[in-house]
Amino acid sequence: MIKKKPSFVKAIFFLFVIGFSVLGTSQTIKGTTLYFDTSIAADATPTVLAQFMAAKERPFSEIKFEKGIYHFYPDKGLEIYAQISNHNNGLVKTAFPIFGMNNLTIDGQGSTFIFHGIIIPFSIENSTNIKIENLSVDWGMSFHSEGLIVANDLTKKTFDMQISKEYPYEIRNGQLIFIKEYYEHNIGQSILFDPKTKGVLYNTEAFTSLTTRTKTKIQTGVKNIEYKYKADPKSPENSRVGMEDKLVVEQLKPGLVRVFGHTKRIPEVGNILTMKGEQGQNRFAPAFHVVASKDFVAENIDVHHACGMGIIVENTENITLNKFNITPSNGRIVSTTADATHFVGCRGKIEIKNCVFNNQLDDAVNVHGTYQEVVDLLGGNRIGIKVGHYQQQGFSIGVPNDEIGLVNLHHSFYEYGKLTLKSIEKVNSRYQIITFNEKVPANLKVGDYIENLSAYPELLVQNCTIGKNRARGLLLSTPRKIVVENNTFSTEMEAILVPVESGYWYESGSAQDLTIRNNVFQDCNTSGLNRGIIRFETDDESKNVAFKNIVIADNVINQFDNAILEVNNTDGLKFIGNTITNSGTYKMLFPENPAFSIKTSKNIIFEKNKYKGKAKEILKVDSSIPELKFK
Amino acid sequence: MIKKKPSFVKAIFFLFVIGFSVLGTSQTIKGTTLYFDTSIAADATPTVLAQFMAAKERPFSEIKFEKGIYHFYPDKGLEIYAQISNHNNGLVKTAFPIFGMNNLTIDGQGSTFIFHGIIIPFSIENSTNIKIENLSVDWGMSFHSEGLIVANDLTKKTFDMQISKEYPYEIRNGQLIFIKEYYEHNIGQSILFDPKTKGVLYNTEAFTSLTTRTKTKIQTGVKNIEYKYKADPKSPENSRVGMEDKLVVEQLKPGLVRVFGHTKRIPEVGNILTMKGEQGQNRFAPAFHVVASKDFVAENIDVHHACGMGIIVENTENITLNKFNITPSNGRIVSTTADATHFVGCRGKIEIKNCVFNNQLDDAVNVHGTYQEVVDLLGGNRIGIKVGHYQQQGFSIGVPNDEIGLVNLHHSFYEYGKLTLKSIEKVNSRYQIITFNEKVPANLKVGDYIENLSAYPELLVQNCTIGKNRARGLLLSTPRKIVVENNTFSTEMEAILVPVESGYWYESGSAQDLTIRNNVFQDCNTSGLNRGIIRFETDDESKNVAFKNIVIADNVINQFDNAILEVNNTDGLKFIGNTITNSGTYKMLFPENPAFSIKTSKNIIFEKNKYKGKAKEILKVDSSIPELKFK
Repeated sequence: MIKKKPSFVKAIFFLFVIGFSVLGTSQTIKGTTLYFDTSIAADATPTVLAQFMAAKERPFSEIKFEKGIYHFYPDKGLEIYAQISNHNNGLVKTAFPIFGMNNLTIDGQGSTFIFHGIIIPFSIENSTNIKIENLSVDWGMSFHSEGLIVANDLTKKTFDMQISKEYPYEIRNGQLIFIKEYYEHNIGQSILFDPKTKGVLYNTEAFTSLTTRTKTKIQTGVKNIEYKYKADPKSPENSRVGMEDKLVVEQLKPGLVRVFGHTKRIPEVGNILTMKGEQGQNRFAPAFHVVASKDFVAENIDVHHACGMGIIVENTENITLNKFNITPSNGRIVSTTADATHFVGCRGKIEIKNCVFNNQLDDAVNVHGTYQEVVDLLGGNRIGIKVGHYQQQGFSIGVPNDEIGLVNLHHSFYEYGKLTLKSIEKVNSRYQIITFNEKVPANLKVGDYIENLSAYPELLVQNCTIGKNRARGLLLSTPRKIVVENNTFSTEMEAILVPVESGYWYESGSAQDLTIRNNVFQDCNTSGLNRGIIRFETDDESKNVAFKNIVIADNVINQFDNAILEVNNTDGLKFIGNTITNSGTYKMLFPENPAFSIKTSKNIIFEKNKYKGKAKEILKVDSSIPELKFK
Repeated sequence: MIKKKPSFVKAIFFLFVIGFSVLGTSQTIKGTTLYFDTSIAADATPTVLAQFMAAKERPFSEIKFEKGIYHFYPDKGLEIYAQISNHNNGLVKTAFPIFGMNNLTIDGQGSTFIFHGIIIPFSIENSTNIKIENLSVDWGMSFHSEGLIVANDLTKKTFDMQISKEYPYEIRNGQLIFIKEYYEHNIGQSILFDPKTKGVLYNTEAFTSLTTRTKTKIQTGVKNIEYKYKADPKSPENSRVGMEDKLVVEQLKPGLVRVFGHTKRIPEVGNILTMKGEQGQNRFAPAFHVVASKDFVAENIDVHHACGMGIIVENTENITLNKFNITPSNGRIVSTTADATHFVGCRGKIEIKNCVFNNQLDDAVNVHGTYQEVVDLLGGNRIGIKVGHYQQQGFSIGVPNDEIGLVNLHHSFYEYGKLTLKSIEKVNSRYQIITFNEKVPANLKVGDYIENLSAYPELLVQNCTIGKNRARGLLLSTPRKIVVENNTFSTEMEAILVPVESGYWYESGSAQDLTIRNNVFQDCNTSGLNRGIIRFETDDESKNVAFKNIVIADNVINQFDNAILEVNNTDGLKFIGNTITNSGTYKMLFPENPAFSIKTSKNIIFEKNKYKGKAKEILKVDSSIPELKFK
């Protein structure tokens, strides 16, 4: 059970609110059920919000919406300073501030909720037993834009995009800027989709991302600036330095623009270029944000869009997503602009069942913890830590009495010591002072990491359809029991990636009890990256063990290319009863690859598999396990 | 006496802090006096902050610093979400969080505090009887940049700037970007200084601001975007739309850049161009921020720089600034990048004595209230208001039982009705629900304004030296007693501007008891704007009375140009015993002007003045007061 933390960030506007009351008359209360009808549909925000603000005086346990289409504008929404892992922190609005509430069901009864601008549809914090069901979430104007490639010139290295009226734009000094209600973005991160498959284009890596930026040619004195403390060059405020725009855009006629200066392969006619603005500046409003809560359920939900993820869950115990679908709407080829679902520092059990995760611009499921870097040894029980990634700013690593591991990834992927958390003093978004119940051991060094060993969940991913999206299917970093079964994968990168990663995302966790069974893998890794479709990977060159107790059984793998499985730093993996065929869907991109590549591992078993693929070399091993045979 | 409001914005990180304790050993406590020595000087932030965080457990009434130079970095500073009137709201750091404290003196004993990055030196909220004395505030790298004009080409319309190593820069796609520790800015707002006078250049308006932006030539579909609610086109998030960069910069050699595309007069060799980035994006960290407090004193303080104002005070009762000087340092020609001092919604008395306000990039003193626009009539006692200016977002118009005036400026500059405040429900930064103790009258209309009649201060400005700055000397908008005496003014725009203004800044207030006596006005309005140096002005075309009970007596006005006094919408002004001479310092810019211009006014008296100026027409009047004579 997670001890509830004070809702410190969400409280800023709450504290000033006195006696919020009902704005309209379009609602009725029966018992503890609150009904809204479609008379509020033009802007449901003030009426719905008023009920939440008055919830202490007029409590409710259920909200039902008359079936209809409801708009939610930010102008009269509650403003909160949102710290959202893997998104941008900032001021956002919400109409559903579910803060410190217990036992609430919101039932859309089949309604569509259309949001406008930077507004988080459902913001849940410090709450228990919350269920949201039977509704779909969409946005009036999207936070990404799409252009159809209608011509190109391979000699002059240009291509022409037709931009429909759903995506208004202007050109500022040769830069294409898409203008939305309350928002704008430039080309930034981009990827091609294939309108025939309605998924990411085969071999898109050859064409995209567009090469939008280049180093500035003129810089004078900048290198002489002295920083007392190490700056993060990847954070948005620093990443602009030393870089300038490389592409130039000209309008040929309204709705038709020509792009000059791209240096990868020129996109081909008929494909759709999707664009969402600069990395680090394009994730402001996930559809669901759940923090420091317990027993959250979302069921029969369609999320068609979001400025970021479909759902991001932090420091929460027990999450169930059932028929929680991420799919595009309104003729758009993109659904959410980042991951479908993402879980950081959760515990208990995550169940993801009967979901469709399609066309989002990042992974379908990502489960991990967080590394924080030790920067100050403050004596006694206290250390100063620095949050490593700019999209983890303000993240709390745990709650009192959690078991905290001390880690040096160059020596071991596992902790070399353990302490228990007493308190966190959040001085600022990047710097926190952590106090333990015990004295800090002498072998803890500045530069080491801490991770929360108590904050990893069990995970079930079952009966889901995952594909047509950019990036991975599942990103799995939890040592607790994981079962992945009866799913279908057709992903642009790996279907399943199991990483230990330390230097960029600061996402902690490994896999030590993982079963992948009865799934169908139909043409994954189509993007052009040279990787297996199931991959166990560390970013440290050591031979230490990162992964244990892996079973991959009874799966059907029908893949156009050779590479199926890559294993590194693993002790104990059974690959049993799987059937591998070559789909012939696309031309192979890496025909020289073996099907299975095993390095720096032991106790690997292949049994009862059927290989009908085209790899000349089925199994490639290194000196760690020279006797291994494919069976 | 102001009832204390909850410190809602400052509290966000506080709530999570448990048992902050002393970091270093460079401090001693004697009684309730805390001493810091220079061993903490390399970064004093964590040690100083730790004492403030522990102030409840280990209270102190005085802090003394050993005389020295102390650096304050933001990296380990307390992060607060700062809502700062007339600045940008946002996350900032501070080492001196003076929140909810009473009876504290901070004595620098002659020390210099050097700040780095977006850090507010002194943030005071909800506190009483706070005194800060005997120290100077500066920044390691400035938030503005300076370039010396070393060549120009009037035919090609270019000029060359020499940029010293204090101002590192890079050129991105032809745009000059100055890079700082933790900050960057483009040319944006700019103005010329004269190194001979060390003040703003005579007739700079002919040359600056640089014409940095122009309308985008290509815009497709943008005008079709439908906004449900009226957007603010001036707010930073909207003001980019439809605009692009106009100037282009080339580096001739390191430290020497050529500027192309300027369309005003080309700056002349020998002058210094100061640049501070785009309007609405260049005010993040004033040196002093005082909110919802009482009895604040700053004495013997030198503020050499700030990212914004020297001091901004909001909703505070009784402020004394004595020997509170704003002057540049380190060879810079600019001190603070915005006003020297600024007061919004204050009450009690403001005393500004024995101060120097030099070289700041905006007014020396600005005192006003706030208009808020009525956007929703919510029935009963309640209305919804919209904050008009983006730099007033989150501002609270008052505290319970304050007298609130209902205003329609087109009908009258005075309120047509009064209510008293019960509570403010701050839904978001722009939208608040206001509840009154009384029922809202039927004649209150959407589009009318409210102002707080209780939140205007008395004001004394005495023995101050004001000049060499951009913009005005004093901007006076309070109906309470104002005395301006024994000061010297040499300002770029009006020395004293008394406005009623409604449509842009939403700054409320008038003058109804104003005495200006025994001051010296030495060459004001040098910038090239065609205005009097003392000016009473409304932005509404009506003939209603805005100003009353004005005395301008015994001043010495030695002015290079003709226009001295402009009076509009005034009932009762005595101009007595003043001596006006022509200084001959500069060539007159508007020789056709009369010395005194009186419109739409009555009860104006001129007596015992000596006019030795050069105006052909000393007094110009309109039909409101045809018989008036200059004496």
